[in-house]
Amino acid sequence: MDVTTRIETVRERVDAARAAGKRIGFVPTMGALHAGHVSLMEAAGRRCEYVVVSIFVNPTQFGPNEDFDAYPRDITADRQICESAGVELVFAPGVGDMYPSRNLTWVTVESLTEGLCGRHRRGHFRGVTTVCNKLFNIVRPDAAFFGQKDAQQAIVVKRMVADTNLPLEVAICPTLREADGLAMSSRNVYLSTGERADALLLYRALTKAESMVRQGERNCSQLVSAMRAVMQSGAVVVEYISIVDTETLYDLAEIEDVALIAVAARVGKTRLIDNIVVDLNKPQGAI
Amino acid sequence: MDVTTRIETVRERVDAARAAGKRIGFVPTMGALHAGHVSLMEAAGRRCEYVVVSIFVNPTQFGPNEDFDAYPRDITADRQICESAGVELVFAPGVGDMYPSRNLTWVTVESLTEGLCGRHRRGHFRGVTTVCNKLFNIVRPDAAFFGQKDAQQAIVVKRMVADTNLPLEVAICPTLREADGLAMSSRNVYLSTGERADALLLYRALTKAESMVRQGERNCSQLVSAMRAVMQSGAVVVEYISIVDTETLYDLAEIEDVALIAVAARVGKTRLIDNIVVDLNKPQGAI
Repeated sequence: MDVTTRIETVRERVDAARAAGKRIGFVPTMGALHAGHVSLMEAAGRRCEYVVVSIFVNPTQFGPNEDFDAYPRDITADRQICESAGVELVFAPGVGDMYPSRNLTWVTVESLTEGLCGRHRRGHFRGVTTVCNKLFNIVRPDAAFFGQKDAQQAIVVKRMVADTNLPLEVAICPTLREADGLAMSSRNVYLSTGERADALLLYRALTKAESMVRQGERNCSQLVSAMRAVMQSGAVVVEYISIVDTETLYDLAEIEDVALIAVAARVGKTRLIDNIVVDLNKPQGAI
Repeated sequence: MDVTTRIETVRERVDAARAAGKRIGFVPTMGALHAGHVSLMEAAGRRCEYVVVSIFVNPTQFGPNEDFDAYPRDITADRQICESAGVELVFAPGVGDMYPSRNLTWVTVESLTEGLCGRHRRGHFRGVTTVCNKLFNIVRPDAAFFGQKDAQQAIVVKRMVADTNLPLEVAICPTLREADGLAMSSRNVYLSTGERADALLLYRALTKAESMVRQGERNCSQLVSAMRAVMQSGAVVVEYISIVDTETLYDLAEIEDVALIAVAARVGKTRLIDNIVVDLNKPQGAI
């Protein structure tokens, strides 16, 4: 496995792999890798012969009062995880490699970024789409792999790729969960033991909604109220509970066929998000 | 020469050319081709074995009160010009090919777009950088060729390419002029005979400034005043006369080494722009 901080090295390695007829799979990450990331690398490995993982805590997607400085970083452990997952190339640039001078160019997606996390993290998605666009131009993958856990991010990046005619496929992979259902996240390491228990309320609220939908509830106000009750049964400060169209991300009044149910909350100082998709056309009702 | 409206055909042709070891040169245009465009095609042909010209009047770079509908279109003449210039592929998409659904994604460049034409054509450069980003992702050229005539556009596109890590070179080619000095422009066809005479005042103002600089004038207020006097000697409505840094596009008080002197004006209903670069390090003082 190669590890580099240099953009030119990435281009050379990827060009060589492509010249050898390999498909290039790409998993952009901020490091602090966990089993969720590994599942993305494995998905990439099943579809592509050359897998690139980027590890870059991107400053432009953090707000001034967010956890950019505190965000967990462990490049040694991350390298080991990538190596074990069979990754061919790790691109771990510094901030100066990605933003060598003041960045003047922004890639923004309208509308899709206005609700959900976008409402609470102003500028966040602008940073995400800008850095993804840059990374896609550096790696030039055939396919990039994102987790359903960050549902809005996945939908926004997919739209950015389509609108800008980037010739790559954006693949969305299922959320990985701990045994009790907590969605895997690099930010889970922030949680104390007590907070870890409360954090589970996000998933409990989602499964509550899912079971109500299965039992016939279609009214989103009813579903949101029930979810709020679940989340407020512990020390969880709800940021949003939203039921939205999976393409437009507009709020739904009633669930008609497919819906994204997404929640964000603070548990202590830690901001957590989770979501499920309910699909009335599928017997299980969820991805 | 191939002509296509289809993105997929462009990708196929360019992939084949690249597989044959050819460098890909790209000249994005809005059609209504003139000798200035031909000089870009020729520059591309000297540097690249496969030259692609796009012809697309891009609606997103026109303001609501601008000349999108009236903009001259003559695809038959344009094809002939491309053929004669030795172009390999003409990409002439329709609006629906480039924007198949509501465009939500914008590529914007801050700061550089705030002055000069950007101040007078709100949203113009956002449209330019967005469509150029799309075209670069469709054509994936090794080099793209722009005219110095649209100086701010060239600088903005160059910065967009650098900031987004697009792996291509942006080459800026000299402005072509009519025998009397009028900068070639697709919009010159709008001019009546009387307006054609007044239009020359833009270039006269620029050469006036250039000769003053050669004679030692460094003060930009003095230069701008002299240029304004030249332009106001005819039926020309000045939009701006600016002397700016060639990298930041910030206004200069004094010319210290290199400066962009740029003018925009209306002659009748026609908006014209022109510019020169003065470089005190060069004996001729201009590009």
